[in-house]
Amino acid sequence: MTGPQLHLNLFIHDTGHHEASWRLPGADPLSHVDVGYFEELARIAEGAGFDSVFLADSPVLWGDPGRRPSGRLEPTLLLAALARATSRIGLSATASTSYNEPYNLARRLASLDHLSGGRAGWNIVTTAGDEAARNFGLDAQPAHAERYRRAAEFVDVSRKLWDSWADDAIVADKARGVHTDPGRVFPVDHLGEHSSVAGPLNVPRSPQGHPLLVQAGSSEDGKEFAARYADAVFTAQPTLEEGQAFYADVKKRAADLGRDPESVKILPGIVPVLGETEDEARALDAELDRLIVPDYAVDQLARQLRVPPERLVLDEPLPAELPGEDEIEGAKSRYTLIVTLARRENLTVRQLIGRLGGGRGHRTFTGTPLQVADTIEHWFTSGAADGFNVMPAVLPAGLRSFVDTVLPILRSRGLFRTGYETSTLRGHYGLARPGASAIPSRDGDARRPRAVSP
Amino acid sequence: MTGPQLHLNLFIHDTGHHEASWRLPGADPLSHVDVGYFEELARIAEGAGFDSVFLADSPVLWGDPGRRPSGRLEPTLLLAALARATSRIGLSATASTSYNEPYNLARRLASLDHLSGGRAGWNIVTTAGDEAARNFGLDAQPAHAERYRRAAEFVDVSRKLWDSWADDAIVADKARGVHTDPGRVFPVDHLGEHSSVAGPLNVPRSPQGHPLLVQAGSSEDGKEFAARYADAVFTAQPTLEEGQAFYADVKKRAADLGRDPESVKILPGIVPVLGETEDEARALDAELDRLIVPDYAVDQLARQLRVPPERLVLDEPLPAELPGEDEIEGAKSRYTLIVTLARRENLTVRQLIGRLGGGRGHRTFTGTPLQVADTIEHWFTSGAADGFNVMPAVLPAGLRSFVDTVLPILRSRGLFRTGYETSTLRGHYGLARPGASAIPSRDGDARRPRAVSP
Repeated sequence: MTGPQLHLNLFIHDTGHHEASWRLPGADPLSHVDVGYFEELARIAEGAGFDSVFLADSPVLWGDPGRRPSGRLEPTLLLAALARATSRIGLSATASTSYNEPYNLARRLASLDHLSGGRAGWNIVTTAGDEAARNFGLDAQPAHAERYRRAAEFVDVSRKLWDSWADDAIVADKARGVHTDPGRVFPVDHLGEHSSVAGPLNVPRSPQGHPLLVQAGSSEDGKEFAARYADAVFTAQPTLEEGQAFYADVKKRAADLGRDPESVKILPGIVPVLGETEDEARALDAELDRLIVPDYAVDQLARQLRVPPERLVLDEPLPAELPGEDEIEGAKSRYTLIVTLARRENLTVRQLIGRLGGGRGHRTFTGTPLQVADTIEHWFTSGAADGFNVMPAVLPAGLRSFVDTVLPILRSRGLFRTGYETSTLRGHYGLARPGASAIPSRDGDARRPRAVSP
Repeated sequence: MTGPQLHLNLFIHDTGHHEASWRLPGADPLSHVDVGYFEELARIAEGAGFDSVFLADSPVLWGDPGRRPSGRLEPTLLLAALARATSRIGLSATASTSYNEPYNLARRLASLDHLSGGRAGWNIVTTAGDEAARNFGLDAQPAHAERYRRAAEFVDVSRKLWDSWADDAIVADKARGVHTDPGRVFPVDHLGEHSSVAGPLNVPRSPQGHPLLVQAGSSEDGKEFAARYADAVFTAQPTLEEGQAFYADVKKRAADLGRDPESVKILPGIVPVLGETEDEARALDAELDRLIVPDYAVDQLARQLRVPPERLVLDEPLPAELPGEDEIEGAKSRYTLIVTLARRENLTVRQLIGRLGGGRGHRTFTGTPLQVADTIEHWFTSGAADGFNVMPAVLPAGLRSFVDTVLPILRSRGLFRTGYETSTLRGHYGLARPGASAIPSRDGDARRPRAVSP
């Protein structure tokens, strides 16, 4: 290979990222609970050399059940199934730090890394919204900053747990009857503000050491968190200039923390809507937007903006008076993105709904394969992206057309791999395997593992 | 088929249930983290028509890491992978009610049921031991009775969550733009002593409605719990007489609670150790026992009996003075089983260790295929078992010999299926699919789902 290579993640979302994609004639409205459908998508992406597939998640029934497929298979289980249908592509999922226990989640992620031979990734989210909190014994969500403090501690504990087995702990000495060297398995003895965890983890160290860590919030707290912890960042950037500013900001924050900026990969979301001609692409876009049911979308927008639905009028702009981001305890960066988009382009509520229905504020690239490839290259070479989070408006059709028409152009320009050169997700992203830094040397003061009664 | 049929579950445990099985020449000491190994076992069991495979679990690193393979892949993820390597066999795993959140676990189990096309089972455990508690912010385990109260509430909430989607909730009306009928998805609004959960679940109702519910504790609390909730009971019964008493006890308790006793299947554990001749079987047994390292076993026994290890002398009987079961807050029924076995047969500590090392107190059947088949039939026809939890001392060899030599005898007697007649785990066990009893009719007072902001 010559020169820097794009990294591509396929963000799988039911019948496609466009909210009305399930209404198209070919769409299977039960695909969201059909593991065979996800296997097909993962195999297409693997055949094309994508770095990874990704599944979003939230521990709550999200959105209006009438609007689009809702409820989904728990993603770490779904990825375990996909691990056996694929052999090289990375497998990432969202999991919440607010509504999981570190011991359980760190263990599931290490297990996924074993099951997949080193292809697990974790999108770390704090989970916005009071509705999720109410599934876990709380009346309302913890405050934004509080959720991020818990997330930081959660990741710290998880890393200790992943490091609680030395890579060489299993000695398998049949003659002496020693399976695992007890001096190479360590308690973590974490005692923090949000959790206390004795350890060690109950699964040996996994192929990647740690799963790939992904982060997707773009608030101040989110960017700081990304700079500190993330190997990859998913982000919604509507314009090149905003993309460049975000990219420079996160890379600088990482450098300020002593990290190599190259070790944090920035992947803006793109929603490719492709046609052989520009007109054909625009027609598909218009057909999808025509299928949006405005009532659902207005209700959702009103909830996102924290205003009563009756204040949003379809053919008028957003109300002049809206809460500021600092009043929002939920998804701060999503809120700001929506308001900025509407104000900048002076969109009516109906127009805004169309823009959000396609990619929820991510950059929609509507055009010919050549136009889309040119835009991708432009973002990549002008400091806005290390790669992209590909969010087809319609699945699997939009993935197939992206793979069949855009990728060959990118490959001919030497920007994207023709095949896998590595076998782990960290390998695909060009990232090192974390050492078990907390583990003392064999000659050092090795801690004894805790005896555990059965 | 004629007459009642045996139900057989394969309890998969690393290289076999005998603690020294990993030391045999053919054993792979890394099989416990090798999904391909589990796939092979599941395929053998499915080829033989077993009702299900089962994976035990505990959210703690259990036992001495030197002694045998320790740490394991999280079982709901492992079963998700096995779901795709098989098509008919049931897939059951242990999960703790003390160290999970109902919303998360109910969702994983429903997801496994979708992924497997209706083959998920859940062995409900409360998790004994302070060591597990210390991975979850507690200094010590909650008391035995308290753990069982939480377990009961946990199962109640889980059932409400599994019923929070009507079977016909998804209408997929593309023309009107209504994916799911919002009037057929319900909050659960559970507010209890141990949890409050708003609901609805974020996954549509699964093929079985509820996963098969399994229970394996044999204390008073455990039997009462089994009678109330369990579809199947795994139990350690060392003698036929004890097996008959346990069987009659649980069936009566179920009847007293208004349940059909036939709807609770009792499966004692058996550890088959097979040889073409009795001598050959005994030689295999002795070889395995010779490979046990006494130090590990004495330490474990001392922890189980809550005595200092120095009070256990290898060639002497157990000390006369031991705590009573009512002083044990951990695994009460396991404690009593061990003490009863040692006292009844006047075993030395060394002999007791040999018996426990093979099957941890489960009934070891050492003999020819005919002898083992006769014993199975005898237990089955004399009111001690509806089937068996098969725990081969050595895997996969002990499974293969059981399948190749014992099952043909049982089939020739009309006691075991020659092939699957149903496609779900409940179907294999002859159990009904639970109705969504909490769901009001379409004409009734259907509750509206909670609106959820994204």
